[in-house]
Amino acid sequence: MNSKRNVYLDMKTLEEAKKILFDRFGSLATPVETLDVVESKGRVLAKPAVAAISSPNFHAAAMDGIAVDAKLTFGAGEDAPVTLVPGETAYWVNTGHALPRGTNAVIMIEHLNIIDDKTVEIEAPVFPWQHVRKMGEDIVATKLLFPRGHRITAYSLGALLSGGIFRVDVYQKPKVLIIPTGSELKQWQDIEINAMKPGDVVESNSSVLGGLCEDHGACFDCHPMLRDNLDTIIKAVETAAEQDYDMICIIGGSSAGSEDYAKPVISSLGEIFVHGVTMMPGKPVMFGKVSGKPVFGIPGYPVSAIVAFEQFAGPLLLNMQKLPQKEISALPVSPSRKIASKLGQEEFVRVKIGSVDGKLMSSQLPRGAGSITTITEADGIIRIPAHVEGISENETIQAQLFKTPGRH
Amino acid sequence: MNSKRNVYLDMKTLEEAKKILFDRFGSLATPVETLDVVESKGRVLAKPAVAAISSPNFHAAAMDGIAVDAKLTFGAGEDAPVTLVPGETAYWVNTGHALPRGTNAVIMIEHLNIIDDKTVEIEAPVFPWQHVRKMGEDIVATKLLFPRGHRITAYSLGALLSGGIFRVDVYQKPKVLIIPTGSELKQWQDIEINAMKPGDVVESNSSVLGGLCEDHGACFDCHPMLRDNLDTIIKAVETAAEQDYDMICIIGGSSAGSEDYAKPVISSLGEIFVHGVTMMPGKPVMFGKVSGKPVFGIPGYPVSAIVAFEQFAGPLLLNMQKLPQKEISALPVSPSRKIASKLGQEEFVRVKIGSVDGKLMSSQLPRGAGSITTITEADGIIRIPAHVEGISENETIQAQLFKTPGRH
Repeated sequence: MNSKRNVYLDMKTLEEAKKILFDRFGSLATPVETLDVVESKGRVLAKPAVAAISSPNFHAAAMDGIAVDAKLTFGAGEDAPVTLVPGETAYWVNTGHALPRGTNAVIMIEHLNIIDDKTVEIEAPVFPWQHVRKMGEDIVATKLLFPRGHRITAYSLGALLSGGIFRVDVYQKPKVLIIPTGSELKQWQDIEINAMKPGDVVESNSSVLGGLCEDHGACFDCHPMLRDNLDTIIKAVETAAEQDYDMICIIGGSSAGSEDYAKPVISSLGEIFVHGVTMMPGKPVMFGKVSGKPVFGIPGYPVSAIVAFEQFAGPLLLNMQKLPQKEISALPVSPSRKIASKLGQEEFVRVKIGSVDGKLMSSQLPRGAGSITTITEADGIIRIPAHVEGISENETIQAQLFKTPGRH
Repeated sequence: MNSKRNVYLDMKTLEEAKKILFDRFGSLATPVETLDVVESKGRVLAKPAVAAISSPNFHAAAMDGIAVDAKLTFGAGEDAPVTLVPGETAYWVNTGHALPRGTNAVIMIEHLNIIDDKTVEIEAPVFPWQHVRKMGEDIVATKLLFPRGHRITAYSLGALLSGGIFRVDVYQKPKVLIIPTGSELKQWQDIEINAMKPGDVVESNSSVLGGLCEDHGACFDCHPMLRDNLDTIIKAVETAAEQDYDMICIIGGSSAGSEDYAKPVISSLGEIFVHGVTMMPGKPVMFGKVSGKPVFGIPGYPVSAIVAFEQFAGPLLLNMQKLPQKEISALPVSPSRKIASKLGQEEFVRVKIGSVDGKLMSSQLPRGAGSITTITEADGIIRIPAHVEGISENETIQAQLFKTPGRH
């Protein structure tokens, strides 16, 4: 029996494992594709965007009123009004219109005495280019609008289109194949709630990881669930590695149980770089390479799966499309009671956070990695480093926030 | 000429106008639809989600090892090992397996002396339920998983599926029709860059607002661009109001120019509530109601359009699907030089932010509302309230951030 069991390779610290991941895969980038600008929001430019035209590409009225040659208005005053003739020496314009030939200033409608259809008087001179948006005021052709690596926002679309850029080169979204494994699991589509038997478990990790893929700018496919059969899993990973997936995540079977197949799958098809990380939950995570592609063995306990994904697969997905790493907001909190923690292991403790007498207090949720509600009910996570043995009530520690405390 | 021009209704302050918007439309909610849980990420629950099953729905091994009836181990010690017979008095289990009938504890493989296939010895007793995840440990059937109003995250999918909830009732995404207007505008699809004539302007606002709709959880259609023709625009809005749109945004024609049609369009089909807000940019924004639906007149200058959308249409879209309002992060900055500002007008000043000797300094970008690059190049916005005449170099003021300063 014992001989069939897997053994962890040398366990790595979280920091070491991340370094190995990025040393091996940090230069991977998804292919570049060309999209219509209007379809490019959220993508990252693979080339600098340089304006093809100026904006405006003509001198434009900046106010509603009358366009004139400023010279004609010089000397106008309250006692010496100047008369302008619409259609001859002046032209009605609305904001945004091109200035008629021969004009270089706009007089606001509020400053005009309109005598009749043919006669308008002004009582003050205007200077050249008053109330005019000059050609190129916003964008001059050849201007660098955005450098390579810029993430396109809703606002960016306006600058790109105004600068005459209608198509852009961007990194493709990484495509992830998620392979849930485990003979005890059933797909929700196949379950009749009232006919569930003891031992039936709803497979949910693939949906959670799929959602996290999207949250990291990737798209995903879910492979039909696989039973714990080495050959079937090998075949699935081998096939996927030949397709256009950028990453493969095998869920389940990454720990050291006798039916833990992720390790033999990856090592028979490629190479394993890390198996086991000194963190909790998520310790049994593993990753390696098959046909040049990153393949993860994601532990099957729901919170372990989330931590493993967010520490490794997620950051790599962002990096592959040149997105910045997520910024996590944090707040200092005081634990409502001592949080124990094992030396040599980085712990991710889920906490609720509340304000007590104006001070933020955290209270620890159950630590079982098998309990998804410990993460859905949490306001955040306290990370306890490997060299720290616990946090006492009197200490203040940063809690990373999922959401605003108290909000559902 | 003058008689054809529109006149602003009583201008409102931003605060007044928002109050009117929410008094009129704050109770609007999009219809409820039923989705597969796996399609529901980002949506808001319209009903509480109550677990249909327990998770686990059986007593499960929490470790790899051997399942026993704890009673059989009582009295075991180093000098008095207890022998167990796999298949008879003990059963090999992996993490997650249902405990075999008659067992109530798991002994970790590391604590076993495996003598042969038929004989295993232990040198310590175990207590009942050791290394067992008891039925309902994570979720007990009938537990409230999430209240009405909960926004479904990737994590939530795990709790819902584990609790046997495979379909959920959620608010529909609001559907917005964006109608760009303006005879001077050309759609990007119709433009040959090298054949552009002075006076041609690329229509870009509809794409920016479409992107902002998505950023506010809504979907959108863009109406083909309309020229400045009152009847055509009336017809388009009338038709849209009869369709399944939840909101209509007419871009352009909302100021007081002679070709500003948003006002007569809305008032001929329904009722105008606000026309003109004492803010800059965005002053000419208007909104009213047609067939019970909110219709916005969005000014055509790109920064005005963005401010008008983000102050009014965006918050209403979030509210219609019960999403929380956006939290805007802000930092205290010092202006590098005095920022002038008109009394009686709330100003949105675009700024770049940089650190100088450890102090955050803001420098003002050009204020023209016609310049999209003043917002794409900004790190954030300083809002100067209507009752303040300007900000001096020595003052510290909050800057609302678009992104991390210095990041592209």
